[in-house]
Amino acid sequence: MREIVLETERKLQLIEVTDQIRDALGQENGAANGATAALIYVPHTTAGVAINERIDPELVTDLENAFQRVVGDDWEWKHEDEDGPNAPSHARASLASSPQVLIPLKDGGLALGTYQGVFFCEFDGPRTRKIYVTTLR
Amino acid sequence: MREIVLETERKLQLIEVTDQIRDALGQENGAANGATAALIYVPHTTAGVAINERIDPELVTDLENAFQRVVGDDWEWKHEDEDGPNAPSHARASLASSPQVLIPLKDGGLALGTYQGVFFCEFDGPRTRKIYVTTLR
Amino acid sequence: MREIVLETERKLQLIEVTDQIRDALGQENGAANGATAALIYVPHTTAGVAINERIDPELVTDLENAFQRVVGDDWEWKHEDEDGPNAPSHARASLASSPQVLIPLKDGGLALGTYQGVFFCEFDGPRTRKIYVTTLR
Repeated sequence: MREIVLETERKLQLIEVTDQIRDALGQENGAANGATAALIYVPHTTAGVAINERIDPELVTDLENAFQRVVGDDWEWKHEDEDGPNAPSHARASLASSPQVLIPLKDGGLALGTYQGVFFCEFDGPRTRKIYVTTLR
Repeated sequence: MREIVLETERKLQLIEVTDQIRDALGQENGAANGATAALIYVPHTTAGVAINERIDPELVTDLENAFQRVVGDDWEWKHEDEDGPNAPSHARASLASSPQVLIPLKDGGLALGTYQGVFFCEFDGPRTRKIYVTTLR
Repeated sequence: MREIVLETERKLQLIEVTDQIRDALGQENGAANGATAALIYVPHTTAGVAINERIDPELVTDLENAFQRVVGDDWEWKHEDEDGPNAPSHARASLASSPQVLIPLKDGGLALGTYQGVFFCEFDGPRTRKIYVTTLR
């Protein structure tokens, strides 16, 4: 299993990490081992991962706004800990993203669609974050 | 890895593909190879996959309406490309569906619950679409 | 493949099942078999699974309220069967949770983040429910 470390910059931010995942897979040497799929896993509770179009920066902004809006900061929230009252960040992590994606491998590389990129989804930044990358047979 | 090709007919449409996935798995011959799970992956950015009840057509309509409503066409969107201003379709793909499901195999078949079916989720149709099906050990 | 059986108590309820999953994995003896990841699968259409923070009970209540609110009981619904008019429960299962999570294994155990727990998400309880647990190589 490989770890990607990244620094996020904003409260809610989508960061494309497709290239870092490809690098990690190269180190993992999955193709040589006959791997069938790559598992991308986020070990955080106010962050996640999503796959969407990697071409247009304005779409990334649109997605950030939609991921913000699907959960209201003004809903009634009780949770408050050392990170402050960040319950909406936890709710967005589950409602707008996922802790993992599993991508098939083809000819040793990610079988992503033409326009697909993998995005780390930060919902409570800025923070130092990790992504786990491993391969399955 | 097998590919299922399908033609969608409406802008937002859920299409049950459980039987096509079973056919693809039969060709993949997963059981004979000791496979443990089937990976269903959608290589598109305005489509996805979901598992829900396959019995009642009215529920499928209810789900289509809910998947539509969770993201508003009237939110502020910037993205516009050759496919037109379809940012809500991208947002729905991530918020209302997933790029993949992973289903355990039991006695060589999908270990789906009694009422579960696999649905391709079209959010920007009509289009020609693909689903990748592969097995993991 | 192991099965966890649980009894839910409320209409919409998040129940942490991390320990039960660890027990099931111990019986599955995944580490000894060189497993790479654990697949947690829910074979129901009005329930699912999510990963979020397992520390603060108030956050669990916040998440239950958010998972309730993201889908409106007052939206127009048609579906009605022997379980009653429970279309919102089906919609919540797809919009607020997932039928499965796939968690990497490290040194024979779940590679969860420090604050992560696995939650069974009931959207149409109380009911008797199942979770399938299996390991992948």
